[in-house]
Amino acid sequence: MPKDLITGGLGFLGRALARKLVEMGKEVVVFDVVEEPKWEGHGKEKVKTIRGDIVHLPLILEALKAQEIETIYHAGALLPPVSEQNLHTAFAVNVQGTVNVLEAARLGRVPKVIFVSTIATYGLGLPPVVNEDIPQRPRNMYGTTKVCGERLGEQYHRRHGVNFRAVRFPPILGAGRRDTAPSAFSYLAIREPALGRPYTIYVERKDSIPVLYIQDAVQGLISLNGAEESRLKRRVYNIHGFSLSAGDLAEMVKKHIPAAQISFQPDPAIMDIIRGWPVLDDSRARQEWGWQPEYLLEGSVKDFLSEVRANPSAYP
Amino acid sequence: MPKDLITGGLGFLGRALARKLVEMGKEVVVFDVVEEPKWEGHGKEKVKTIRGDIVHLPLILEALKAQEIETIYHAGALLPPVSEQNLHTAFAVNVQGTVNVLEAARLGRVPKVIFVSTIATYGLGLPPVVNEDIPQRPRNMYGTTKVCGERLGEQYHRRHGVNFRAVRFPPILGAGRRDTAPSAFSYLAIREPALGRPYTIYVERKDSIPVLYIQDAVQGLISLNGAEESRLKRRVYNIHGFSLSAGDLAEMVKKHIPAAQISFQPDPAIMDIIRGWPVLDDSRARQEWGWQPEYLLEGSVKDFLSEVRANPSAYP
Amino acid sequence: MPKDLITGGLGFLGRALARKLVEMGKEVVVFDVVEEPKWEGHGKEKVKTIRGDIVHLPLILEALKAQEIETIYHAGALLPPVSEQNLHTAFAVNVQGTVNVLEAARLGRVPKVIFVSTIATYGLGLPPVVNEDIPQRPRNMYGTTKVCGERLGEQYHRRHGVNFRAVRFPPILGAGRRDTAPSAFSYLAIREPALGRPYTIYVERKDSIPVLYIQDAVQGLISLNGAEESRLKRRVYNIHGFSLSAGDLAEMVKKHIPAAQISFQPDPAIMDIIRGWPVLDDSRARQEWGWQPEYLLEGSVKDFLSEVRANPSAYP
Amino acid sequence: MPKDLITGGLGFLGRALARKLVEMGKEVVVFDVVEEPKWEGHGKEKVKTIRGDIVHLPLILEALKAQEIETIYHAGALLPPVSEQNLHTAFAVNVQGTVNVLEAARLGRVPKVIFVSTIATYGLGLPPVVNEDIPQRPRNMYGTTKVCGERLGEQYHRRHGVNFRAVRFPPILGAGRRDTAPSAFSYLAIREPALGRPYTIYVERKDSIPVLYIQDAVQGLISLNGAEESRLKRRVYNIHGFSLSAGDLAEMVKKHIPAAQISFQPDPAIMDIIRGWPVLDDSRARQEWGWQPEYLLEGSVKDFLSEVRANPSAYP
Repeated sequence: MPKDLITGGLGFLGRALARKLVEMGKEVVVFDVVEEPKWEGHGKEKVKTIRGDIVHLPLILEALKAQEIETIYHAGALLPPVSEQNLHTAFAVNVQGTVNVLEAARLGRVPKVIFVSTIATYGLGLPPVVNEDIPQRPRNMYGTTKVCGERLGEQYHRRHGVNFRAVRFPPILGAGRRDTAPSAFSYLAIREPALGRPYTIYVERKDSIPVLYIQDAVQGLISLNGAEESRLKRRVYNIHGFSLSAGDLAEMVKKHIPAAQISFQPDPAIMDIIRGWPVLDDSRARQEWGWQPEYLLEGSVKDFLSEVRANPSAYP
Repeated sequence: MPKDLITGGLGFLGRALARKLVEMGKEVVVFDVVEEPKWEGHGKEKVKTIRGDIVHLPLILEALKAQEIETIYHAGALLPPVSEQNLHTAFAVNVQGTVNVLEAARLGRVPKVIFVSTIATYGLGLPPVVNEDIPQRPRNMYGTTKVCGERLGEQYHRRHGVNFRAVRFPPILGAGRRDTAPSAFSYLAIREPALGRPYTIYVERKDSIPVLYIQDAVQGLISLNGAEESRLKRRVYNIHGFSLSAGDLAEMVKKHIPAAQISFQPDPAIMDIIRGWPVLDDSRARQEWGWQPEYLLEGSVKDFLSEVRANPSAYP
Repeated sequence: MPKDLITGGLGFLGRALARKLVEMGKEVVVFDVVEEPKWEGHGKEKVKTIRGDIVHLPLILEALKAQEIETIYHAGALLPPVSEQNLHTAFAVNVQGTVNVLEAARLGRVPKVIFVSTIATYGLGLPPVVNEDIPQRPRNMYGTTKVCGERLGEQYHRRHGVNFRAVRFPPILGAGRRDTAPSAFSYLAIREPALGRPYTIYVERKDSIPVLYIQDAVQGLISLNGAEESRLKRRVYNIHGFSLSAGDLAEMVKKHIPAAQISFQPDPAIMDIIRGWPVLDDSRARQEWGWQPEYLLEGSVKDFLSEVRANPSAYP
Repeated sequence: MPKDLITGGLGFLGRALARKLVEMGKEVVVFDVVEEPKWEGHGKEKVKTIRGDIVHLPLILEALKAQEIETIYHAGALLPPVSEQNLHTAFAVNVQGTVNVLEAARLGRVPKVIFVSTIATYGLGLPPVVNEDIPQRPRNMYGTTKVCGERLGEQYHRRHGVNFRAVRFPPILGAGRRDTAPSAFSYLAIREPALGRPYTIYVERKDSIPVLYIQDAVQGLISLNGAEESRLKRRVYNIHGFSLSAGDLAEMVKKHIPAAQISFQPDPAIMDIIRGWPVLDDSRARQEWGWQPEYLLEGSVKDFLSEVRANPSAYP
């Protein structure tokens, strides 16, 4: 049976994607430069882990040779703040790494490559809602490397017929997140109360950010993979989940955890950043391949809580 | 005395730039992967040639160590059609090569990096005149690699203070061109008659393309290098020379070479390409650092002819 | 004050070397691709840690730019069994990585590069004692990459004057070892009893292997670094500590830990390997730069035991 | 029909090998980084030329994908003096390039890789005749890169079953040589008189060097390719043609060109170099796969002269 390969498969998104694919009956190859935390639990026998660095093309080619791969989900990348510390390394992993994935797909005749891009490919001074026609002037190296990846993927499609498809995600909300990015309050304000700990949100109640629930992110990738080629008018699509206001989030958490201790202590520096974020207009994804998120605020919070409660010791 | 280093310094643009810099009294290091044609003639003692491939960082660093470099003019790149034949090689030379130049500039504390970008970073379906706010969706790998170079240069500026500045040029007109790109009629319709040979233009008289005369291209790079930092509101500027109609060009050549034999035999495929080209709105370059082309149609043709006549055996 | 930089500085050898250099009053930069276990404890303020992969030249150059480096101790490498799993990765880290260190030393004018090589550069079918004139036909990729490193270092010395010096070490004995190589019984037969655990040696009492105590390994590197250039007749030296017989080791451990439970259960496969190991003739190191090990069997066991007892929780 | 691929196929050795293979009825893919001089003449339709740099793995893999390749003859390398000017570039082309060929052979399941090594892998202070058991301590970067290539090839054979086989050649004698190495008198003393020009040999009449005639070099590679695997006791073989004394060479040329003007003007610096060269003991190649040169002094001179006379304008 042909398998799917996920680069960055041990990360937050890759891991959730692998789990979903296994639930759907697929066999999955998880390719990651780290070894931990290992892939365990239900469906473990359907998951093969390969430790490798996408900076080295032979390792990807070897993975493609060892089994038939139907789709490469290319989620492996250095994220901020690591991507911002050394530009050369970010370039090597995120851009050279993406070219390696595209070359491997071409040489190994992999039917599809699904690429994870980001709202960070857009920059400052934007209208509040942006569609795919808006210029991309990223503010940081992470967004820059993803712009390069999008454009290079389009060329491999045009020139070599690699079936490259990509989505630009807003911040993803889910119990598996571990970072401290400006959007981190969105998951910490759920996780910490779920673990019985107080949490202080560092923006104002009225501030809102665009988010996408992890299950919808995973569903979006799988759905784009299955989309009919003839209906696609572009290779890269904006994706939106819902706009999450800090105040609404706090209310919803309290509704489901009456004892939750959530307070507010706004940090102007962070508010300044998040207030510049646009909302991604995903109407083309909706029209061309039927994208539609299932999880809005309450659904996300409920699913998140059930995740944490199912395995509370997994959280730091 | 600090010198300027020109990557791709034996190419059409690099060579003209080196000549101009030498005329201005500068010493120049010409860095190129090819060895021919060698740099000879007037001012030869001011020019040092280094054979090296920008794909290898140590070669650039070594060049920076051997002498004090004030400005790197980064003109080295694979151009179409070579850039379109093998995407991986185009990526290695044009994108990895640009990162190597940026890293070398950072590590070697080079005061300025002037990058040559292109109208090809814009794609299809554009308004007839485009400024820097228009999205860049290049149609080919060449334009794609230059988009990557622009964005990466902006990050090295933002993050490491590398004084990166870039121009997007339209097709360059000059006696030293050798290619067969769709814009080639613009120089062949002057060169061939100057050498006493007939020439058939493959577009209609009314077709026009944006061009920049080589002397203005060189002047633009030097002028951007000298621009006052505080006046620059962006790192990348559109540049325009003049719109050249095929009919006007033929008339102008005949004015200066009465015996010129120029005919027209339109090729729909090529007309289709050039009719999609926008004009680059260069008003920001004009406002922010005083850019202004000196050569319009007649000036270009006259200078071009004097070049060819000064050394007719140099042309194939 | 100029500092010393240690690649692989968080490994067994690198860590012991850093500790010794700090004790001697030096400041040390520890360069490693891993982050754990962090450098802590006494002299911590003299140690700066840089996370970086020697596969990427800019990271090494950046480290050399951030501070004045007097000596690079190049100990970073993939070891068996990892080096044997993917030859391409072993090549990238061990050979390309060494060229990067040599290039960085050349470009950054680092006064000295001390390279850690190995008995594994020799192969099978050798005389029982080998000096530097014996051909090197390594049996595994690890030894192969070190042969390449030795030869490349000699060329950087000859051609560019990089003061490259190297030692070939036998297996190193010390409390910090963590591997399961064929020589592992040498440290486990001390460590396990020291932690109150029984241990079964998998060779015969009469089997012996060449070893070098970690403190002598460290001292050898520092001593070679300080050797007078005019006395060195070669760039690479064999080093020997002492021949350790399994029976003598068991006796010595019991002398110092009367309750030690050590048994023997010979494994023919492993005995076959270790019986092919030569002893490295280190007479040239002794003559040319005064090399002499301080730790023989009893000294090694006593120091090893004091290490374990000082911090028993550090051992798995 | 499966084809053979020759890296460096437009060089002196590669070109002669391609010609021979075509004469034998094989189809050949010539892979070279240069484009000139193009492959022309008899059998041209059996030869496909690919321009590519072995520094980039995807180019080799693409060549293996475009046709079935039976054997890769890996002759592509930077030679002295170019290899000595920049060690990093020599490493990239000769060592990284060889790893790329080996990886490509492994990933593309190419049945055989025949590698061209050299007498320059041996160094100074050797016995007058050396077999494969003598240590290799090359004096220059070229020899160093070939030692690395030999050892790495052995590991790809051991670990991945790549059928790597190699020969160490002495200087090759043939009309197609173009270099100015110390052994250059051996071909110039034939070519120049054949073109009616005087020549001055820069060693003494009694000086002799080991040489191999180009036809025998080609035959050696083809013969090793066809050798029965079970008879091979090693992966790398020394090859010898004959010892050529300068005096004998001059006599032989005069015998066939009575008007030849050959004089002697010894240059002590060059004599010093060539007098240190050993003779390669090729008895193992003779025993294990039937190697035997056909061309000794007179045969070489006669064939060389007929080459030059068949196409005198091809020589500078």
